[in-house]
Amino acid sequence: MTTDPCTPAERSRAASRRAQILQAASDCFHDHGFHGASISLISKAAGMSAGHIYHYFENKEAIIAAIVERDLDRLLTLSAEMRAASDVLEALIGRAAEGVIDNLDPRTAGLKVEIVAEASRNPAVAKIVRAADRCCMSSLSETLRILRANKGHSTDDATLQGMTEVLASMFEGLLLRAIRNPDLDRDRVVAIFQRVIRQLVTDPN
Amino acid sequence: MTTDPCTPAERSRAASRRAQILQAASDCFHDHGFHGASISLISKAAGMSAGHIYHYFENKEAIIAAIVERDLDRLLTLSAEMRAASDVLEALIGRAAEGVIDNLDPRTAGLKVEIVAEASRNPAVAKIVRAADRCCMSSLSETLRILRANKGHSTDDATLQGMTEVLASMFEGLLLRAIRNPDLDRDRVVAIFQRVIRQLVTDPN
Repeated sequence: MTTDPCTPAERSRAASRRAQILQAASDCFHDHGFHGASISLISKAAGMSAGHIYHYFENKEAIIAAIVERDLDRLLTLSAEMRAASDVLEALIGRAAEGVIDNLDPRTAGLKVEIVAEASRNPAVAKIVRAADRCCMSSLSETLRILRANKGHSTDDATLQGMTEVLASMFEGLLLRAIRNPDLDRDRVVAIFQRVIRQLVTDPN
Repeated sequence: MTTDPCTPAERSRAASRRAQILQAASDCFHDHGFHGASISLISKAAGMSAGHIYHYFENKEAIIAAIVERDLDRLLTLSAEMRAASDVLEALIGRAAEGVIDNLDPRTAGLKVEIVAEASRNPAVAKIVRAADRCCMSSLSETLRILRANKGHSTDDATLQGMTEVLASMFEGLLLRAIRNPDLDRDRVVAIFQRVIRQLVTDPN
């Protein structure tokens, strides 16, 4: 029996299968590391055959690429929503609270840290991670450009890129803090992040 | 032939052997991940037998513990030097530049990120990492207490711990940035870090 891959029902079925594989793979990468998470292990966790997994993803790097792309899509949507807000600064400060709490979730953190650890020794994963990072940084930098232009502050590229890098360091650092100090005071960290971000992005120079 | 392990020559020889193993293990953990780096691989990289490695370290977790302890010792020394400075704030700002550059070194970053990734799924490694983190945070918090007391700012524990957490997030985030964006503008990141840290730690509240 063959199915037409272009019908809406078949496309929705494929999307749901892909999501099911990504969830199983995310759990396996978190629990066993990239190398310990074999396609056989991922297929067991997803409740489907290894052949089925290969139908959707060529290899583990392709699964990582899809996980990274999913995270990038979320970030680009968030960034676009902040740019569309009537007060971009207040939108950024408000959404920062969610960003802190999301990054402090230990499972999210463990998976993201594992992907970066793999990128540091696997050129294929490094390429995926760096391409996504360039999109992410460029979008956040554009959001800061609009925020600062509205306030009459300087918007040269080097300033915006530097601020974007420091914002990224702050938020990504939380991924490591979630694992190193799971008992940290979340509310206090949110409050200090909001104060620091306000000062950082409204610096006139 | 037996040797007396307490003679100065034998102690110095043991210390040098341990350092040699830690360097080889650091390279193997970075290049192959914690699971890929077998004791056999580490022994080849160190140029000694596996039996020799086991003479100094019971298992890979014990090697990780020694690497983490070495990093902790450096941090505690740095923190004590800052506390002893005539102007603790200026010492912190000055040393922040070195801290940024150190954390942006891709090999340092890769190894540290790998250890945290392993901690997120291996309770023995998590215990090592968290115990070291508590010492590190407590020392940095004490440094901030002295800095702020000198300026007449509030020094309650919750404030100090929150500021210490945010400082830690900023610096640890650089480990991930070093891998995600190896071409970032180091000088600009140093300058912005110094400005942000000054504002963060001198907030009167």
